[in-house]
Amino acid sequence: MTSITYRHDVRVYYEDTDAGGVVYYANYLAYYERARTELLRSLGFEQDKLIASDDVLFAVTRVDVRYLKPARFNDLLAVYATVARCGKVGIEFEQRIERMSDGNLLSTATVEVACLSASKFKPTAIPGNVKKALES
Amino acid sequence: MTSITYRHDVRVYYEDTDAGGVVYYANYLAYYERARTELLRSLGFEQDKLIASDDVLFAVTRVDVRYLKPARFNDLLAVYATVARCGKVGIEFEQRIERMSDGNLLSTATVEVACLSASKFKPTAIPGNVKKALES
Amino acid sequence: MTSITYRHDVRVYYEDTDAGGVVYYANYLAYYERARTELLRSLGFEQDKLIASDDVLFAVTRVDVRYLKPARFNDLLAVYATVARCGKVGIEFEQRIERMSDGNLLSTATVEVACLSASKFKPTAIPGNVKKALES
Amino acid sequence: MTSITYRHDVRVYYEDTDAGGVVYYANYLAYYERARTELLRSLGFEQDKLIASDDVLFAVTRVDVRYLKPARFNDLLAVYATVARCGKVGIEFEQRIERMSDGNLLSTATVEVACLSASKFKPTAIPGNVKKALES
Repeated sequence: MTSITYRHDVRVYYEDTDAGGVVYYANYLAYYERARTELLRSLGFEQDKLIASDDVLFAVTRVDVRYLKPARFNDLLAVYATVARCGKVGIEFEQRIERMSDGNLLSTATVEVACLSASKFKPTAIPGNVKKALES
Repeated sequence: MTSITYRHDVRVYYEDTDAGGVVYYANYLAYYERARTELLRSLGFEQDKLIASDDVLFAVTRVDVRYLKPARFNDLLAVYATVARCGKVGIEFEQRIERMSDGNLLSTATVEVACLSASKFKPTAIPGNVKKALES
Repeated sequence: MTSITYRHDVRVYYEDTDAGGVVYYANYLAYYERARTELLRSLGFEQDKLIASDDVLFAVTRVDVRYLKPARFNDLLAVYATVARCGKVGIEFEQRIERMSDGNLLSTATVEVACLSASKFKPTAIPGNVKKALES
Repeated sequence: MTSITYRHDVRVYYEDTDAGGVVYYANYLAYYERARTELLRSLGFEQDKLIASDDVLFAVTRVDVRYLKPARFNDLLAVYATVARCGKVGIEFEQRIERMSDGNLLSTATVEVACLSASKFKPTAIPGNVKKALES
């Protein structure tokens, strides 16, 4: 069995850093989400269209993030998202961030998302075509 | 004629700063908006209720911001919002930020907001009770 | 044995929300940090002074966050930080966020921070007076 | 005489939006700065290297931004930066943001930046090679 991994490159801008001279710890979560969004896009799923066509959105229910080395202003980062598990209403991603200039592993994360009805904000089944694409 | 001025105090946290060691320039706009929100709240208007009851929200159409001295991590700031003009569909605010420890003026801004129908995102008249309160 | 718990109140502004109508998941980490900063301040420790006097800062090495219910625009939140463990170079906090209007538990988190030399960005011992205050 | 214009493409992610369903007004300033950073990079100037080699950084002293139409989640934006004027210690940029799907002009901005000594945070002359490149 194989699993889907997507790599999304991110440049660190001033907006991402803090007075410690490094990327602010909350902003890694934004980077991780960009990679998940691009993974879905690479499979043909646009999240604004999923809301309109299937009344579903994905909400994060848990993140477990380790910060190993700091990313700094101007760094170019490779942000990875791997589909670790796709259930009926939830998806688990394994993610990591590497700095491109030296290949250092900066952060790892496990991220659990739930499929919600966009109108009711209640858990609902992942659309069949999305689940199929994530499992292929 | 008098005009309404509201003062809202803001603490600078790590999230607000950048690698230059100062508050990131976009984040002053968030501070300015907090003060406008609190001015409205002080007059009895909650913006989530205004959407529900009157189908209106306020969208910024222009900001002209001057950055005079940098705010730094841990600074306590006084953020002021003054209603400079209240028209039929728009409000103009004069705003400024002072550092509380030394009274230094850090930034000034002119901010124009338009009243929009929340459902149509089109300009609409400011509700009468809001306009009356802002002009008093 | 007792442990120190600090409560810091946070208002949700537009800046914190996303197009899903709820607080963006990364922004809970900013709220959690504000509460840790205020806990330290309540014990007499200002982090900018700690850098200047002791050459130390605290960097997050791990967060494990659960998102139980969404916070929304205009919500008033109680953000708690409890010192769960204080070692030689690291501190573990247990944190949670409750909505004040209904008392609902919105999120919980375990946050591990390491004490770093501010100049070398390497792990170093927590200053004695800080450790003593956190353990009392 | 010609002036340098750079175009930088930006995708709108959830992190950029607010509960109004549109990009939060402060975040346009982050987009505008990314384009200015990429303009400098396209001319061979990395801002982290400029700090190290020339002890200079660029700080925004004024922004005048107009918000014409809202950008939304998932939009792909073209963010432009044009060098309007380059003085001894300051640069003025004219900037604008267009949505790529329909070519609509969403925002325009005039941004003034000052060259500062990174160590003293005081105005200083723009390095000769930077000024020359911006004027060419």
